[in-house]
Amino acid sequence: MAGTRQESDSLGTIDVPADRLWGAQTERCLMNFPIGTEVMPIPFVRALGYQKKAAALANKDIGLLDGRLADAIAAAAGEVAAGLHDAEFPLPVWQTGSGTQSNMNANEVIANRASEMLGGKRGAKEPVHPNDHVNMGQSSNDTIPTAMLVSAVQELSGRLLPALDGMTASIAAFRQRFGDVIKLGRTHFQDATPITLDQAFSAYQAQLEAVLAAFTQQLPRLSELPQGGTAVGTGLNCHPDFAAAFCRHISDLTGLSFSPAPNKFAGISAHDELVALSGALNGAAAALMKIAGDIRLMGSGPRGGLAELLLPKNEPGSSIMAGKVNPTQVEALTMVCAQVMGNHTTVTIAGSQGQLELNAYKPVIIYNVLQSIRLLSDAVDSFTKRCLDGLKPDRDRIDALLKSSLMLATSLVPHIGYDKTAEIARLANDEKLLLKEAALRLGYISEEDFDRWTDPSKMIAPSGD
Amino acid sequence: MAGTRQESDSLGTIDVPADRLWGAQTERCLMNFPIGTEVMPIPFVRALGYQKKAAALANKDIGLLDGRLADAIAAAAGEVAAGLHDAEFPLPVWQTGSGTQSNMNANEVIANRASEMLGGKRGAKEPVHPNDHVNMGQSSNDTIPTAMLVSAVQELSGRLLPALDGMTASIAAFRQRFGDVIKLGRTHFQDATPITLDQAFSAYQAQLEAVLAAFTQQLPRLSELPQGGTAVGTGLNCHPDFAAAFCRHISDLTGLSFSPAPNKFAGISAHDELVALSGALNGAAAALMKIAGDIRLMGSGPRGGLAELLLPKNEPGSSIMAGKVNPTQVEALTMVCAQVMGNHTTVTIAGSQGQLELNAYKPVIIYNVLQSIRLLSDAVDSFTKRCLDGLKPDRDRIDALLKSSLMLATSLVPHIGYDKTAEIARLANDEKLLLKEAALRLGYISEEDFDRWTDPSKMIAPSGD
Amino acid sequence: MAGTRQESDSLGTIDVPADRLWGAQTERCLMNFPIGTEVMPIPFVRALGYQKKAAALANKDIGLLDGRLADAIAAAAGEVAAGLHDAEFPLPVWQTGSGTQSNMNANEVIANRASEMLGGKRGAKEPVHPNDHVNMGQSSNDTIPTAMLVSAVQELSGRLLPALDGMTASIAAFRQRFGDVIKLGRTHFQDATPITLDQAFSAYQAQLEAVLAAFTQQLPRLSELPQGGTAVGTGLNCHPDFAAAFCRHISDLTGLSFSPAPNKFAGISAHDELVALSGALNGAAAALMKIAGDIRLMGSGPRGGLAELLLPKNEPGSSIMAGKVNPTQVEALTMVCAQVMGNHTTVTIAGSQGQLELNAYKPVIIYNVLQSIRLLSDAVDSFTKRCLDGLKPDRDRIDALLKSSLMLATSLVPHIGYDKTAEIARLANDEKLLLKEAALRLGYISEEDFDRWTDPSKMIAPSGD
Amino acid sequence: MAGTRQESDSLGTIDVPADRLWGAQTERCLMNFPIGTEVMPIPFVRALGYQKKAAALANKDIGLLDGRLADAIAAAAGEVAAGLHDAEFPLPVWQTGSGTQSNMNANEVIANRASEMLGGKRGAKEPVHPNDHVNMGQSSNDTIPTAMLVSAVQELSGRLLPALDGMTASIAAFRQRFGDVIKLGRTHFQDATPITLDQAFSAYQAQLEAVLAAFTQQLPRLSELPQGGTAVGTGLNCHPDFAAAFCRHISDLTGLSFSPAPNKFAGISAHDELVALSGALNGAAAALMKIAGDIRLMGSGPRGGLAELLLPKNEPGSSIMAGKVNPTQVEALTMVCAQVMGNHTTVTIAGSQGQLELNAYKPVIIYNVLQSIRLLSDAVDSFTKRCLDGLKPDRDRIDALLKSSLMLATSLVPHIGYDKTAEIARLANDEKLLLKEAALRLGYISEEDFDRWTDPSKMIAPSGD
Repeated sequence: MAGTRQESDSLGTIDVPADRLWGAQTERCLMNFPIGTEVMPIPFVRALGYQKKAAALANKDIGLLDGRLADAIAAAAGEVAAGLHDAEFPLPVWQTGSGTQSNMNANEVIANRASEMLGGKRGAKEPVHPNDHVNMGQSSNDTIPTAMLVSAVQELSGRLLPALDGMTASIAAFRQRFGDVIKLGRTHFQDATPITLDQAFSAYQAQLEAVLAAFTQQLPRLSELPQGGTAVGTGLNCHPDFAAAFCRHISDLTGLSFSPAPNKFAGISAHDELVALSGALNGAAAALMKIAGDIRLMGSGPRGGLAELLLPKNEPGSSIMAGKVNPTQVEALTMVCAQVMGNHTTVTIAGSQGQLELNAYKPVIIYNVLQSIRLLSDAVDSFTKRCLDGLKPDRDRIDALLKSSLMLATSLVPHIGYDKTAEIARLANDEKLLLKEAALRLGYISEEDFDRWTDPSKMIAPSGD
Repeated sequence: MAGTRQESDSLGTIDVPADRLWGAQTERCLMNFPIGTEVMPIPFVRALGYQKKAAALANKDIGLLDGRLADAIAAAAGEVAAGLHDAEFPLPVWQTGSGTQSNMNANEVIANRASEMLGGKRGAKEPVHPNDHVNMGQSSNDTIPTAMLVSAVQELSGRLLPALDGMTASIAAFRQRFGDVIKLGRTHFQDATPITLDQAFSAYQAQLEAVLAAFTQQLPRLSELPQGGTAVGTGLNCHPDFAAAFCRHISDLTGLSFSPAPNKFAGISAHDELVALSGALNGAAAALMKIAGDIRLMGSGPRGGLAELLLPKNEPGSSIMAGKVNPTQVEALTMVCAQVMGNHTTVTIAGSQGQLELNAYKPVIIYNVLQSIRLLSDAVDSFTKRCLDGLKPDRDRIDALLKSSLMLATSLVPHIGYDKTAEIARLANDEKLLLKEAALRLGYISEEDFDRWTDPSKMIAPSGD
Repeated sequence: MAGTRQESDSLGTIDVPADRLWGAQTERCLMNFPIGTEVMPIPFVRALGYQKKAAALANKDIGLLDGRLADAIAAAAGEVAAGLHDAEFPLPVWQTGSGTQSNMNANEVIANRASEMLGGKRGAKEPVHPNDHVNMGQSSNDTIPTAMLVSAVQELSGRLLPALDGMTASIAAFRQRFGDVIKLGRTHFQDATPITLDQAFSAYQAQLEAVLAAFTQQLPRLSELPQGGTAVGTGLNCHPDFAAAFCRHISDLTGLSFSPAPNKFAGISAHDELVALSGALNGAAAALMKIAGDIRLMGSGPRGGLAELLLPKNEPGSSIMAGKVNPTQVEALTMVCAQVMGNHTTVTIAGSQGQLELNAYKPVIIYNVLQSIRLLSDAVDSFTKRCLDGLKPDRDRIDALLKSSLMLATSLVPHIGYDKTAEIARLANDEKLLLKEAALRLGYISEEDFDRWTDPSKMIAPSGD
Repeated sequence: MAGTRQESDSLGTIDVPADRLWGAQTERCLMNFPIGTEVMPIPFVRALGYQKKAAALANKDIGLLDGRLADAIAAAAGEVAAGLHDAEFPLPVWQTGSGTQSNMNANEVIANRASEMLGGKRGAKEPVHPNDHVNMGQSSNDTIPTAMLVSAVQELSGRLLPALDGMTASIAAFRQRFGDVIKLGRTHFQDATPITLDQAFSAYQAQLEAVLAAFTQQLPRLSELPQGGTAVGTGLNCHPDFAAAFCRHISDLTGLSFSPAPNKFAGISAHDELVALSGALNGAAAALMKIAGDIRLMGSGPRGGLAELLLPKNEPGSSIMAGKVNPTQVEALTMVCAQVMGNHTTVTIAGSQGQLELNAYKPVIIYNVLQSIRLLSDAVDSFTKRCLDGLKPDRDRIDALLKSSLMLATSLVPHIGYDKTAEIARLANDEKLLLKEAALRLGYISEEDFDRWTDPSKMIAPSGD
């Protein structure tokens, strides 16, 4: 700590750490909201950097902001976007529901940094002023949702979609290598008719592809930004050309495609598109919980479980039980899924509680949405690399279970009828016989017919006659 | 009660009410699951009727099912689809997780009815057999999700989308009639800069249009049916041409467009598309809760609230307080929204709990999805007709609040600066003066300038210079 | 339909079916809220009967209500409490958030019935008037929450606690009969050290006992009634002695113990005690989902699962797969659990949304709470009788899995060290040997020592040295 | 970074930063679970310090652990408990579901630190071994839930209960100072009969006292620790006296009262007591959301809202609107409430998903529970100090609204009847008159009578005649 300097806002003066770029309102927020340890997420902070840079360039284009000031702001904001000033954004999630203080945090940091670039002094508010210049033509109420959307789209595009692509590819590769294996199907977690590993894993692939499609469908709506609506959506104190210019610049800067929201009132007073995104994240979590759970079930054992799949051993499973391997990547992923589902409840409630011209739950919404994206991305990626990629079937075990199954009897029904078939299955079950033993003992069928009719390889597709 | 008749299944014989069309398995289910009062939803039952009819016609097309039997099944199933046998479907939601008993309920009712049409006797299982004929080429595991999807699409298309369209039109009409009114905007539920009623209600319209678009986006995926997958998705005991023929027929019968699911394994072992639909319903609930809540806020009063909107009086508000009018349609709608959000939690959990080849939470999923659709449809419709359509602004009240606002000062900032403006606002607030009184007392501005600059009609759009 | 009669309220006249006991306000509500199919739950309606009876008797005690009228009201209300007029309460859950219309429904039905008892005419509002006499000293705002609490306590005491007691007893009986069986323990759903069935099922019993204790803890708070607070909690237009007299009577009538709420403002403006009850129901659901899930896992098979437990066969499991037995009671119970969890989300949201002197989500709260109680009660009862009571271990299978386990090696560690133990386990795993074979092949241990040290019966308790 | 040292576990060697106290398994976990940014919560880490210290002292008491080693372990673990080594616990929440790696993290850090205290070298595993000594008689499966419960009880007792006490006291003080003020009551957010500020705030106090009681009720169950159950609850490899000795020590060390869980199987395979605690946190959130929401409503304005309460101005409300004061503490608190509700969904799902002898969602459960406790504690504390403590009524405004109310008419009903009263109210409403003006114009009542009968101070309590 290098001492303090005095800064002021409309409530008076306040001491700010001298080595910090932030100003009075940020400092006041730190004092007023000593709540929890969660700070505004880094991707959101960096998106604010992009937002301030695009705003400065737009104001310059329109001719409202002096080019020298605009360039300095753009440079300073670019540093924020690049992550050079993450530590200058210490504000908690639990602040004003509009995120006003985080907007002022960005205004203050960028104004100070830009002023210094131009030879000014930290805290002097000149030549670059946080409100008049950095926040020009903006309000927290349009700025914060803009940064929310930009960060959500960036994280979605940059993290989650690639992670899901990777998992899909891993499943496709597994199908390629091991798809021919025929195993016991199970419904109600009870033995059922046969299925191939290709078929079983095709379901996972289909689920993932639908998850990917759902996210992709959301992107256009998430890319409509309310910037330009200022305080209540009317655009008061903002130039009519600002929104379009802003969207051009932020699209350029991020390499993504953003456009002005057709209705800025809705974009400030509600965050339905983020509730929808959270719904898609929730759907992804439900799908992944099922898939991961299946891997756990098929990997159970080694002796007292299904033991059809062999999972990679990534770490010692137990300090007390030698040789124990646990499905730890499954567990990390399913815990993440439970988190994402809960986050969705939070986002839903928060999203429903807007009042008139403002939804005042902005920080908690973006905190949860970005956490869900990040957790799913990382957990899917880790699960893919440390579990799926190394997954192998135990062919002997799978074959033994399949052959012992009573459900092969299903294919006898067209030949000897439901009643005799049921009698065979019942005898096998009661006496713990193989199905064939029971069939032959009852004398309903020859061994040759039994073998031909109960061939699992003929039970894995529609039959043509 | 007209006595009983004996029916049998593989567990033995059982007495069934003589006047009922259902058979042994339905009766056994009634005995085994005396849980709650919720029965399988009527739209689902009727969709099962469509499903059985389409299956019979498909089997006839393929040549597997005798034409006379097929036609009788189709006729009987058509009666179920038309709602003539709703009372023959008494089974609880809380049964087998595959809905097997509801499938058998349909098989039994239709077999008995079709047999009677052909001169047979109730309970004889001939000439039409519930399993061999009505259930031909089908399993509960592909039939039940098919009926789930068909009923969801029907209810969505037939109820919810029209209801949302109606609400959108009502809002558009309100904007047309009253859009010119300029009122106080409010952020943080605190006075803010002005907004027109047109602008405020445009946000609701934009939200609703997005809700509608979200549902429309879901339809293609909901229209892909796993029928033909039979027990585990492989299609064992089903003809390869069945799925396509089935989808042709059910599309014809319903007037909607259905196609075979590209992956039937996923359609049986997971219901991600219904989790997604539930997510969209949840999103609609969040949006509607905000909109309805706004109407409640603006309609509060008559003396001690905002009192900007006058709500239609539909019923006496209180037995104790004369003249009380309550926002009862708002309350019915917001209660529905809370229900839909909770239903979504249920569907999410249920959807995540599939194991291997089967998700065994099918009945609870469709029960909640159909309840959510129905409740939103009806509540939106009632809210539109009994609240929105009769909504009127109190122009005098709105104008008085607007004129008393301190936030008009915002437009002084460009002329006399932030500090003097704040001084005026503070004086007005502390002394409870009109803004103009405070401005003139401080002498910072002429009356003429004040009136010109604080004209609300100039504060509701971006400013061009 | 036997024609109509005209009734009136402060909004005018309205036609009511002539054979119905209800009046104008009930009829108007039917017209105004055509939403869904869910009507106010029967236990709530009957509790309203108890409430109106207790109110009449209390007003008689105090001397405010003529004895002849009071007795007639008490008699008519008693019929409602006894279920004789369930069909006279057709109102939807989705009505005014205070439940005002359901209160008026009770007032109208009881006034008409009591008037008839005294020789009056249906619809005449004399000699017994719905507001002046039946609703005397009451408001919907204190009456409805009173009936909510009374019905919740009745259903809890009369249904859920006995059902949970029965399940606990069934588990205790299972432990008694089969507790000595030693089986493979499993952590992470992977083989672990041994455990007895007594121990495994003691966990379920402990969970259930904690669930029971949690409900019992809630009863005192649920038994504090806001009756006497009238419209906003102040008790305006209600006699100071009314609340105490009312609670004496309703305690007598129900055989349960109710007392006046110390703070009636909170009892009208919030329903925290029902949110808490819903939380306990949610906790019960989480516990039951775990217990039922374990039964499903241990009962999986018959050949390709754990197959340690044999579940009773209650119905044919499949129309396509002969001999299939599914854990259908598990599925019904776990679907109920998912429903209860979702209902809790609904109740939580609804409970948080009170505004000032009233929470206007009363009907949706009690609908969900009573549904959760009923479903858990019935499903627990059915699960107990049709699954737990008939549950049996497959001793041979359990023994075979236990003996094949590599985790018995854990008891070698104190004798030959972690490293040699791990080597034995690894060899057994890689070569698919029995643990003993691997141990002897490596020569680290004698057969005699191996057998003594790996005795599972010595691995199921703390060791004393 | 000061280079690396080599450490090993049963999977081989691995490089660990030389300046870190952690060892191979911690490092491996960091590599295997690069998921998100959430690390195991500090209060949990410190509770692990207490747990390891108590375990060492218990093992010393029993005579299993050499006194010199035990004392060194106790000293090192005490440092962890005191927060001296927080930075040595870098592991993510998203790891093994048993928290095994966090247990090993503690074992490794404490073994290294204790070894150094005794002259040994970091990484040498001697004289103090992480498994043999620090983890003696323990398994992750009993250790982790023990630390979960200890940290939950500590945070509850040390943070949340005091914060709620403080808020209760603040409300009591407000009632003391301003309780005499009579204001307009509101039901359905519509004008209703009068209420005093004392009465209105007594509801909040009653809600908070019930919240406090609910938490206090949970403490005994949360204080029952499964320590001593080791891997599956049987206590294998643990001395029979260990659990009792452990609980004595951890009670001493923490100043709280802990005892051995009567059923350790349930304490490992389920976390129902934490689901219940989360339920209580959820209930607190629902109550607080209502209370905070009321403050927001009554503080709305300054001109276009209710404006009955004046909130402290803690920061500038807007960079664009001078003089704007926003209910920022309300917003922070209600965002926290939404978070806690979502966390509860997560905990419920996670708590329901145990399988057989283990619930493998431990880290996500404790992460959410501790976050909820911390956020509620801090937000309640901040809301109390920065909003409630400075809250003041605007007596003039309150009086004006009360006098303008039409609901005062309610007290005329006993004197002139419901119909004439309604006529007066309707006239006043339609013509925007004061109630008195309407009453006098209609001539139903003298001015003197009107004033006497509509005295609000007589409308705030039950009436004695």
